[in-house]
Amino acid sequence: MGWFRPNIEQMQGYAPGEQPQERGFIKLNTNESPYPPTPAVLRALRAAATKDVRLYPDPMANAVRRAASEVFGLPVGRILAGNGSDDLLTMILRAVVGPGRTLAYPVPTYTLYRTLAQIENARAREVPFPPDFRLPRGLFRRGDAATIVANPNSPTGTAVSNAELSRLARAIGGLLVVDEAYADFADEHALSLVERHRNVIVLRTFSKSFSLCGVRLGLAFAREEVIEGLAKVKDSYNVNRFAIAAGVAALKDIEAMRANAQRIRATRRRLARALEDMGWRPLPSQSNFLFARAPKGAGYTAGEMYRALKARRVLVRYFDAPGLDDGLRITIGNDREIDALLRHMKTIAASRAG
Amino acid sequence: MGWFRPNIEQMQGYAPGEQPQERGFIKLNTNESPYPPTPAVLRALRAAATKDVRLYPDPMANAVRRAASEVFGLPVGRILAGNGSDDLLTMILRAVVGPGRTLAYPVPTYTLYRTLAQIENARAREVPFPPDFRLPRGLFRRGDAATIVANPNSPTGTAVSNAELSRLARAIGGLLVVDEAYADFADEHALSLVERHRNVIVLRTFSKSFSLCGVRLGLAFAREEVIEGLAKVKDSYNVNRFAIAAGVAALKDIEAMRANAQRIRATRRRLARALEDMGWRPLPSQSNFLFARAPKGAGYTAGEMYRALKARRVLVRYFDAPGLDDGLRITIGNDREIDALLRHMKTIAASRAG
Repeated sequence: MGWFRPNIEQMQGYAPGEQPQERGFIKLNTNESPYPPTPAVLRALRAAATKDVRLYPDPMANAVRRAASEVFGLPVGRILAGNGSDDLLTMILRAVVGPGRTLAYPVPTYTLYRTLAQIENARAREVPFPPDFRLPRGLFRRGDAATIVANPNSPTGTAVSNAELSRLARAIGGLLVVDEAYADFADEHALSLVERHRNVIVLRTFSKSFSLCGVRLGLAFAREEVIEGLAKVKDSYNVNRFAIAAGVAALKDIEAMRANAQRIRATRRRLARALEDMGWRPLPSQSNFLFARAPKGAGYTAGEMYRALKARRVLVRYFDAPGLDDGLRITIGNDREIDALLRHMKTIAASRAG
Repeated sequence: MGWFRPNIEQMQGYAPGEQPQERGFIKLNTNESPYPPTPAVLRALRAAATKDVRLYPDPMANAVRRAASEVFGLPVGRILAGNGSDDLLTMILRAVVGPGRTLAYPVPTYTLYRTLAQIENARAREVPFPPDFRLPRGLFRRGDAATIVANPNSPTGTAVSNAELSRLARAIGGLLVVDEAYADFADEHALSLVERHRNVIVLRTFSKSFSLCGVRLGLAFAREEVIEGLAKVKDSYNVNRFAIAAGVAALKDIEAMRANAQRIRATRRRLARALEDMGWRPLPSQSNFLFARAPKGAGYTAGEMYRALKARRVLVRYFDAPGLDDGLRITIGNDREIDALLRHMKTIAASRAG
């Protein structure tokens, strides 16, 4: 065609996980919460459906920033709202990388990072995780415009410590983005690093722990001068009135979110043990999903299990990529969903063992 | 600081019109509709506040594409949904321009085009409109990666014909983006050009005529291969569940929108005449706003009138830029708001004349 930039012509778009529009699936493939948003959040969403919808939302979503400031203890000037944390990742990449500039990140990880680097025609420096999923030494190097660490990481669910992240922030010359989409399910989070380092951006999302995938809301935390730079490339009205209303209500109701996160952690422990009993090898997860490698010599592969589960209307995530194609990423559903998953897995395994 | 790309360090962000968060303003500054969304749209928004908010929206917002396909008569594959038409403009710029590539557009126009070109580190070729606001001849040239025409244009409100746009589409080598944010208030629209030209993208928004600024929804219409290229740089879940619900309901209720657009056109004619009676010189508007130049020798400037109106809690838009700073852009409010505006303007004018 030739309408587009050569890097766009050549690339593939990012492929999100399947979002079946029909009902009836047990959906354990895109790390949504099995628990609904709280009644207060749903009330706030309904209350936002007034004639004021004719008016633009606040460009800076200040009501969300103020509520987040109270909950997380950082000043409003260190907080920026996005249309999901993907929007914030886009802002960071647009502002920071480009032709001749490098984005570094450990792999395997969220494949959107690579897509965003391709869109900006920037170099993606992918540094493989060591087998223990601590930060690879090759990441600790000056010369990258930005370094992204998903922590906890996806699709592995593993996490590195704040001490490691702090060392990384000091070792690199550019920005360190800690993508904490799953931090509410982890033992530790990195917000304190924003106080300690001038070059750290911490990202959060309302999609996972707050059960708000459908409204699109994320937050970036960083020093004022970083926030101001990112705001330059922000769409004027990136966060809509419903996302603002839901975000404020969800932050006021944060104990409900924390209770859900605890339930998910309990189910995660139970699922890990059950998978181990079936011969699967789950990685230690700090997230709302488990990455587990299929048993060897069981008569089926991870890919076959994925397809057999899908035929039974259970969706999990299978990555057809080296180092990942021997496992499945399973979102922690509610107990009923996880019981059904395990039942189906056992039936499928038994049918293949014969 | 040095964290950001040099072009980002040097640029200013786009400054949207004021969005006062307090009540009590007569708000005629950002071209919102004075009429609320229809009851069916508000019902659909409330109905979307269910526990399904925990799930991601459909990445392609297919329900909106199908509804738009029925209303506008183009196939679903020629339609793409955005988080407002600003999001679609961002997609186009990211996919099409960059260092060494040029974006062309007539000026004065929507200043976001310049901002988006700066973000992509692309060259912005700004070609001044002639005094009659037909397309400038300097636009008809090969070598630009994309050409944008806001039609009707903002802040002038003027429009060019489809015949002119068609000639432009044939004359240029790149894409022609016809930004039709205000087309529902005009005599003509350019959707037929998508059928006629391989390189035309028509943009629409639900913000203005559909009274849905607050939900963020826009549509792009173009040939399938153009839509597919743009989709590569789309945020995975760019349109949230509320925007999808509102968009579908609004498209089903399109006659209500058209009735509102007719009322706005009637008020526009009345405001134009009243401003002329006061010595102002409004440009011929095809939009939901009027750009009018202040009377000469009236004892006040356009900027002074803007500030005096603001002190009386009437917001209009003043552009402190050459060629625009002798006028005001006034959104067509409802009849009560326009009566109040005219009353205030007469009082202010009388106080300065003495």
